[in-house]
Amino acid sequence: MNIEMIRAASARLEGHVRRTPLLSSPFLDEIAGRRIWVKPECLQHTGSFKFRGGWSAVSGMDPDLRAQGVLAFSSGNHAQGVALAASRHGVPAVIIMPSDAPQMKIDNTRALGAEVVLYDRATEDRDAISAGILAKRPLTLIKPFDDAMVIAGQGTCGLEIAEQAREEGITEADVLVCCGGGGFASGIALALEVDAPGLRVRPAEPEGFDDMARSLASGEIERNERQSGSLCDAILTPQPGAMTFPILSRLAGPGLVVTEDEAMHAVALAFSRLKLVAEPGGAVALAAALFHSDEIEGEDVIVTISGGNVDSDVFRQALERFGG
Amino acid sequence: MNIEMIRAASARLEGHVRRTPLLSSPFLDEIAGRRIWVKPECLQHTGSFKFRGGWSAVSGMDPDLRAQGVLAFSSGNHAQGVALAASRHGVPAVIIMPSDAPQMKIDNTRALGAEVVLYDRATEDRDAISAGILAKRPLTLIKPFDDAMVIAGQGTCGLEIAEQAREEGITEADVLVCCGGGGFASGIALALEVDAPGLRVRPAEPEGFDDMARSLASGEIERNERQSGSLCDAILTPQPGAMTFPILSRLAGPGLVVTEDEAMHAVALAFSRLKLVAEPGGAVALAAALFHSDEIEGEDVIVTISGGNVDSDVFRQALERFGG
Repeated sequence: MNIEMIRAASARLEGHVRRTPLLSSPFLDEIAGRRIWVKPECLQHTGSFKFRGGWSAVSGMDPDLRAQGVLAFSSGNHAQGVALAASRHGVPAVIIMPSDAPQMKIDNTRALGAEVVLYDRATEDRDAISAGILAKRPLTLIKPFDDAMVIAGQGTCGLEIAEQAREEGITEADVLVCCGGGGFASGIALALEVDAPGLRVRPAEPEGFDDMARSLASGEIERNERQSGSLCDAILTPQPGAMTFPILSRLAGPGLVVTEDEAMHAVALAFSRLKLVAEPGGAVALAAALFHSDEIEGEDVIVTISGGNVDSDVFRQALERFGG
Repeated sequence: MNIEMIRAASARLEGHVRRTPLLSSPFLDEIAGRRIWVKPECLQHTGSFKFRGGWSAVSGMDPDLRAQGVLAFSSGNHAQGVALAASRHGVPAVIIMPSDAPQMKIDNTRALGAEVVLYDRATEDRDAISAGILAKRPLTLIKPFDDAMVIAGQGTCGLEIAEQAREEGITEADVLVCCGGGGFASGIALALEVDAPGLRVRPAEPEGFDDMARSLASGEIERNERQSGSLCDAILTPQPGAMTFPILSRLAGPGLVVTEDEAMHAVALAFSRLKLVAEPGGAVALAAALFHSDEIEGEDVIVTISGGNVDSDVFRQALERFGG
């Protein structure tokens, strides 16, 4: 896993993936006490950064293998990213999703042409379902984060951040990245290491699902007790990845942990101040920048909004509770 | 009023105004039956294209005159655009706003450093208030649309559309522009005339406030009966501008008129499909592309989302009624 793989992914993504802008608001700066720069990957195709990794993986496959189709499991954003990448390559995709995933994510994944297989998180084993399908059909599994081609794709966002920070004259800053398994954070960290060494990734997670923060602190992979039950559905993973943890262990600063309320408040502020639709899990980095400013140093902070695939009732709830 | 003024404005705006992206969604394309390309000016500083015109006007003023301060009247988007442009130039701004303007717009204009003077649309005369202030203070009035420097600023969005359409291989298309007084539409039309002659502006308006559509049809300036009472507050003007009408008369295609319900439905679809916050008045062009496709020709249509400054209760209402 190295910068050359990210640059190669960037070349494959050219013309297919959006270069998202870098946004800001004086109102958010005032809350945070420093300048906040927002990288809105909710504006990416399929509404999250996951399309970068999906496209990178599908476009990088051997064409004969790819023609047989791909398989993925995901609560929804990786699902849509792989589904769209597969359909644009004209190959079939089977996506295994938990039945309690947001309805919009299930609907969109189907509408993007994928065959969706639902399972019950509480009673069924995802890996067994996946193995059963792979035994019968010649599909290639695209893992959500512990996959070099996927990490390389997510890293292209880091190349953009490095370039955009340079354009804004930012040479030193923490880059807060919403973190589930760590694919997005580790891809960005690898890109910044080379292209913007003054920028440092820090993973942001919701309370109760802070496996990466605890793992970085202890130096060993730590698991979460709970596996579900947060509005931050996009970034709930049991533990850091075997590939992503060593990368972040070497390159990332301490993790930041926010409450679900802080994430929902950040969703409302992204609405009113940035005119962006963020999903709760996609807003944890913004929440950390806004409400944990004492844990951050420097005049500037860069945050990702990793996705915007939120059901309208959850979004309305955020506005009712925190809307301006 | 010519393309050179727009290019000069573009040079003044460089580094101060955002180059907004050109977005799309396969789900929206399916509804419209053609490819819809969305220019989201809700992502512009202050949440609307008006910052372009505000910056163009303030930056283009004689410095001594500018130092005395500026005056504007506006229901909210021009207000914020001028307020931020003035504060970034370090000069005072007085903004006259109707007391029934969305609260967020009033609050933001104050927070951006402007002195806000409220008046009652039903009982007070805006022009008299404006004249009274100008008699006492050496401020320069920046009109919302009938001002060459303002139109030149809005036209910079047209330069970007021309460039982005070329990048996407679009050589012929209608460009639907949300239209109040016509400053945005006429600026874009002048830019496209030179930089993308295959693209044609068509103003989009809400039912009951279709003065531009009727004026273009009759060849004479027509007035609206009502002056307020629509959720599309951003684009309610009594009649086309004396400067803007001749430009649009020469360059624009027929106007498109949408219902308030269609605008609210477009707000909900911009939420779910584009992850954008659009205000109802800012969504009329998208609504026209989605729900009036039989009045449009060609494989592609480009639409502006002109602003995103919507109170959260109106936004929640759109999601409750039309949210996915």
